[in-house]
Amino acid sequence: MTEKLDEWETTKRIETLVDGIFAIAMTLLVLNLSIPQLTSSVSNITVENYLLALIPKLFTYALSFIILAIFWRVNHQQFYKIKRANPLFLWITVIWLLFVALVPFSTSLMGEYGNTQSANIFFNTNLLLIGIFSGLIWYYATKKGFIDKELSREKIIELNKINLLLPIVALIAIGASFVIPAYSTLAYLAIPLVKWIIKA
Amino acid sequence: MTEKLDEWETTKRIETLVDGIFAIAMTLLVLNLSIPQLTSSVSNITVENYLLALIPKLFTYALSFIILAIFWRVNHQQFYKIKRANPLFLWITVIWLLFVALVPFSTSLMGEYGNTQSANIFFNTNLLLIGIFSGLIWYYATKKGFIDKELSREKIIELNKINLLLPIVALIAIGASFVIPAYSTLAYLAIPLVKWIIKA
Amino acid sequence: MTEKLDEWETTKRIETLVDGIFAIAMTLLVLNLSIPQLTSSVSNITVENYLLALIPKLFTYALSFIILAIFWRVNHQQFYKIKRANPLFLWITVIWLLFVALVPFSTSLMGEYGNTQSANIFFNTNLLLIGIFSGLIWYYATKKGFIDKELSREKIIELNKINLLLPIVALIAIGASFVIPAYSTLAYLAIPLVKWIIKA
Amino acid sequence: MTEKLDEWETTKRIETLVDGIFAIAMTLLVLNLSIPQLTSSVSNITVENYLLALIPKLFTYALSFIILAIFWRVNHQQFYKIKRANPLFLWITVIWLLFVALVPFSTSLMGEYGNTQSANIFFNTNLLLIGIFSGLIWYYATKKGFIDKELSREKIIELNKINLLLPIVALIAIGASFVIPAYSTLAYLAIPLVKWIIKA
Repeated sequence: MTEKLDEWETTKRIETLVDGIFAIAMTLLVLNLSIPQLTSSVSNITVENYLLALIPKLFTYALSFIILAIFWRVNHQQFYKIKRANPLFLWITVIWLLFVALVPFSTSLMGEYGNTQSANIFFNTNLLLIGIFSGLIWYYATKKGFIDKELSREKIIELNKINLLLPIVALIAIGASFVIPAYSTLAYLAIPLVKWIIKA
Repeated sequence: MTEKLDEWETTKRIETLVDGIFAIAMTLLVLNLSIPQLTSSVSNITVENYLLALIPKLFTYALSFIILAIFWRVNHQQFYKIKRANPLFLWITVIWLLFVALVPFSTSLMGEYGNTQSANIFFNTNLLLIGIFSGLIWYYATKKGFIDKELSREKIIELNKINLLLPIVALIAIGASFVIPAYSTLAYLAIPLVKWIIKA
Repeated sequence: MTEKLDEWETTKRIETLVDGIFAIAMTLLVLNLSIPQLTSSVSNITVENYLLALIPKLFTYALSFIILAIFWRVNHQQFYKIKRANPLFLWITVIWLLFVALVPFSTSLMGEYGNTQSANIFFNTNLLLIGIFSGLIWYYATKKGFIDKELSREKIIELNKINLLLPIVALIAIGASFVIPAYSTLAYLAIPLVKWIIKA
Repeated sequence: MTEKLDEWETTKRIETLVDGIFAIAMTLLVLNLSIPQLTSSVSNITVENYLLALIPKLFTYALSFIILAIFWRVNHQQFYKIKRANPLFLWITVIWLLFVALVPFSTSLMGEYGNTQSANIFFNTNLLLIGIFSGLIWYYATKKGFIDKELSREKIIELNKINLLLPIVALIAIGASFVIPAYSTLAYLAIPLVKWIIKA
């Protein structure tokens, strides 16, 4: 099923771009934690209260950082096996990265308006799209034979199942956005449970 | 036609700089999607309206992200073949990167004032210059014999033609800026068509 | 003591992510040095006074840059030896990076409110957590046998001791935050002394 | 003259950090080209005037981008030869990077207040310090024998001379800051001339 590929279509430089975009997106998350510039001299209590009010934003920062790390790890696992590419494969990866690079914005939206339905739907849809394209990368690469031959059919199907994990949780979170917007992101804490169900 | 080169003039570290600047420029695009910081507690409808008003900026974000990815891919293809360098080659690459790193600014200009002629001309001229210098990289490298020998004359000419693709589309978009400023960037959707004409 | 590992769990791409996040966090520190945008034309004295008032922020910039470089160097030293990984090891590293990426924020907090106790406690606690997780990376890797075999038991213990250095200094700085908040960060200048005591 | 080194003290990961910090510093320069957010609908002339007023900032952007590229190229040339390191060598490199990462700030200062003496002295002193530490890297590495043996004494001295180039030009620019502040940076255009004098 492998098609004829241009020799330069390897995944080495794609990996470099992926690692770069993840490193930057993960570090840009911190820019959402801006501090107000008070011109007058401030008391210790003012700063303390300010930091306490920052706790929801710190939670969103940690959540987004860890979710991005999960997606990076999944990609790490996929690209260990995927060694060739074609133009369509590259474009699926680029669209996936487009949604990855959007996470700092979605996160800032959640940090400011995390108690509104709209912000929750936007954030969870962003994660859903990352999950779908991450799954597409693996599905397309296995279909086109871009992976090492020695990977068994069972292993490929198992990895396809794992790829369903984050989209499913994101869908649950989108549903929760309509009922309990302020707590929809807690759905991601259910990942270990869903992981166990899929594997069972 | 190959000249005597200093042994350290390889393209390995240039590639690292290129990948780094692309990854950062692509991720910085997201900073244009800033959200207004409303101090009062906001309703869901407010956030929803705000997000709907953001759609043109999201379109510009996606367009710039994909155009940068196209240029990165072209460079990826070029540098697979180019293995040596000289000072002038490095400087052509640096000027090219200077215009690449300018894209987040051009994009923010389009996001804010995309319906004005000036913004469209600035944005499209930026892409035109990236396209021209990208073409120069390939033209100079082939002229100086910095590429692998086994590349046929036909292949080199074919790649020179492909390098004309983006400058041509950028020129069309600049022209369109004078007639229909708000829609000039739609010209880039014509890339598949122009690609077909050039190859024909 | 080595467990069965998935073959793809190497530290090569983790290193790339670590280097990326450090390079970005170290460069983002500079964003705290913002200049006021005065619309009227300003005299030379105004700019001079502004730059003199910036000296404490420049000190904080340099301090954070160097502390991040110290942690990067420790990681560099650790990962030269650590060649394998498992999921838990990866997650310890990710949490460590989460606190590394937080440093530009802690630094901006210190730059604005460095004379308050709260800002000093936040900054020093951030460094304490980086130090603890940096130590955990080494402790867990040696316990699980992820390092090269030829490292002697004495060397491992010595490196475990070095890992205590930064947490100890951070604890001293936290203590100092309660007494002399504006000068708590001077504790980090004591690093050479503590280094000498630990080795003795 | 070579001392006993820890085996892990190679320059491979230092190179990665250097390339990362340069790529980010060069791309962050663009953040100085911010556009005013006008809430009312603006005419084409308004945007055109705004862009014309931006020309001095675009010049400063290009100048800083190219100067950083020059320093990156010098480092590229140095590290092709330097293969080992010790703690002091690493710290010289870190201090050098500290001043490299400061360039986006110096540039923004020049972009806003480029006609004042203070801004010019700050900017040129920043470049002077980068030049001095860049020279120190090469001087220390050759003195300690961290470079490949086959480099002739003449070549080492020649490269030491080249390292004087940027500090000399920076000193000229600092001098010019006292006489013609608004044009001090034009001194850098004299680099090709000074290069010719040093080599003669």
